[in-house]
Amino acid sequence: MVKQVAVLGSTGSIGRQTLDVLRAMPQLFRVVGLAAGKNLDLLAEQVEEFKPEFIGYPPEATDTELLKRTVDIKNSFLPLDEMAASPKVDIVVMATSGKAGLRPTLAALRAGKDIALANKESLVSAGEIINGEARKSGARILPVDSEHSAVWQCLCGEDQAAARIILTASGGPFRQYSAEQLAEVTVEQALRHPSWRMGQKVTIDSATLMNKGLEVIEAHWLFSMPYDRIDVLVHPQSIIHSMVEFIDGSIKAQLSYPDMRLPIQYALSYPERLPNPRLPRIDWSLIRNLDFEPPDYDRFPCLRLAIEAGKQGGTCPAVLCAADEAAVELFLAGRIRFIDIAGAIERTLEQHRVIAQPTLEEIETADVWGRETLLKAVSGVK
Amino acid sequence: MVKQVAVLGSTGSIGRQTLDVLRAMPQLFRVVGLAAGKNLDLLAEQVEEFKPEFIGYPPEATDTELLKRTVDIKNSFLPLDEMAASPKVDIVVMATSGKAGLRPTLAALRAGKDIALANKESLVSAGEIINGEARKSGARILPVDSEHSAVWQCLCGEDQAAARIILTASGGPFRQYSAEQLAEVTVEQALRHPSWRMGQKVTIDSATLMNKGLEVIEAHWLFSMPYDRIDVLVHPQSIIHSMVEFIDGSIKAQLSYPDMRLPIQYALSYPERLPNPRLPRIDWSLIRNLDFEPPDYDRFPCLRLAIEAGKQGGTCPAVLCAADEAAVELFLAGRIRFIDIAGAIERTLEQHRVIAQPTLEEIETADVWGRETLLKAVSGVK
Repeated sequence: MVKQVAVLGSTGSIGRQTLDVLRAMPQLFRVVGLAAGKNLDLLAEQVEEFKPEFIGYPPEATDTELLKRTVDIKNSFLPLDEMAASPKVDIVVMATSGKAGLRPTLAALRAGKDIALANKESLVSAGEIINGEARKSGARILPVDSEHSAVWQCLCGEDQAAARIILTASGGPFRQYSAEQLAEVTVEQALRHPSWRMGQKVTIDSATLMNKGLEVIEAHWLFSMPYDRIDVLVHPQSIIHSMVEFIDGSIKAQLSYPDMRLPIQYALSYPERLPNPRLPRIDWSLIRNLDFEPPDYDRFPCLRLAIEAGKQGGTCPAVLCAADEAAVELFLAGRIRFIDIAGAIERTLEQHRVIAQPTLEEIETADVWGRETLLKAVSGVK
Repeated sequence: MVKQVAVLGSTGSIGRQTLDVLRAMPQLFRVVGLAAGKNLDLLAEQVEEFKPEFIGYPPEATDTELLKRTVDIKNSFLPLDEMAASPKVDIVVMATSGKAGLRPTLAALRAGKDIALANKESLVSAGEIINGEARKSGARILPVDSEHSAVWQCLCGEDQAAARIILTASGGPFRQYSAEQLAEVTVEQALRHPSWRMGQKVTIDSATLMNKGLEVIEAHWLFSMPYDRIDVLVHPQSIIHSMVEFIDGSIKAQLSYPDMRLPIQYALSYPERLPNPRLPRIDWSLIRNLDFEPPDYDRFPCLRLAIEAGKQGGTCPAVLCAADEAAVELFLAGRIRFIDIAGAIERTLEQHRVIAQPTLEEIETADVWGRETLLKAVSGVK
């Protein structure tokens, strides 16, 4: 009953935490595949430790040192989508960032593999296609984001559709900043998230609340929930990870200290829960209050942009993702200000001619278009 | 698929709220039995409205006016335990207060009827016997207390045993009182509960935290949870009704505005949930914070007494219940002070010779002994 796991994106934040969970339970899980696009040194270390059968890394990588080491342990190199669909894999942890996750996700679902999905962009850009493939093969999409894991845990055992999803948001590092203060935000400040330690892109997205907007779209697809029944609630302590309101008005919430290993482990162990002494337990003598406030769509327009793009549907969310990725890169490179991110994305979305029910190719084209259009839109900006 | 419901204790607070729920869903539930020990005028009104087949009231009642009215609608008078066990009843709502609930509860369980249990005393006094009868017949004990309903909802769909139960407590009206202030508490103050409107006995029990102690014992029996894994957490807003921590450290909480109709309805509709526009929905724009603090066992010794009696087991919890009932009556009659309640109960418990694994008769004897001993213990008190 050992589950065979492939971890795509094993050197990123989610990938490393996934391996930390798997490391603690060798009797239950075996790592059969590892893949990474960056940090090939760390990939080589992981390969040495877990001795997977398959290794994936981008074709352009030419790290012969890694090759030398890995050949020793007789593993084979596979493209990501082949690894994700391999008969030797029971469950795929999709922890790559950005659009690189989309095709392997579809390949895994077509092959009937359960996916522990940490890659936001694929579901946001191609939710309808992904859900369609999962339906056809019977594969399950198991959420890894803490918010969606919380919703999923709250829905456990509840056959009936939920009445409402309440996604909580820490509010990011600038929750209490005035518009004037937001105009002065530095990259360093934006990278300092109050409750979660994550990769750079998602940390900036958390500061703009774009991340929460993408999560609204994700929740829409994961739980078949109409947008008007998904609320966002700012909860600075990040203890309640999200809530579900049922048709009788009863609400369930899922709580824990912010630690991604819990939702990762739950996705891997589902439908069981496993004891793991490495996971922290809430000490209620230390928690005196949990705070809540409505999100401010004026100071954080990315949240509104994302929800509107989600409602618009079609190729809009793909353009949103691509434009956001490009805008965040420009901000990190010091080329635009924090408060310019939303405007640049909005101008890009305004120029987009939406294609309803797009094909995968149309989504990929929209992605390229979104990125290029955003770059053009800010070309005037220093 | 109409569920046939008998409501025992229909004129009390829980009984009336039960009928309010049933009134809203005539296509799903039919009231086949009503019983009350007090307020026979209201019982007569309820009989007129719901036209049950069975009516129960105490043999000493001689309200001929009620008899006249009820005879018109061709219903029959039954002792409570016969009504609870009638083949025409699918589910029994046990909303009587005090020890009057014990024998009908056992009769219903022996007959294999599901019980929506709002009567605390029966499970506290005779948890082992009640659980034994339920096991034998396969009948289910469905909690109605908001805290136990919360735990039960959190456990829904979770096959594995919970690691810990966290019962929340409003802390009552005297949460922030000093020892000096507690010595001056009046009956009127004690009857003013900050979040719940309930009967007098349970309102005083909430002010002393005895109620929370009884709920710890109840939780022990309902969820087979050892006492050292049941925590009490003061949460003044009474929005989180209780929580369950699972073996992976994940916590689920159940939330709603304080309204007993929700847990009553859930017990009746389980395993389904039913929409009910009469039930309030949390408006998160109005909730800015939820507060927590550890309970103070020094200022509220009844909580400690109850948990100790629960751990001691045997006839101790029955003596606890009886002594508490007598002490609360004395307080309400102005014969002892608020802060004397705990001491009187403690002196009674100290004198008790515990019988382990008692029979029903031994429990009933302990109950009588507890009441008499408490009355003797305070005979010196004005």
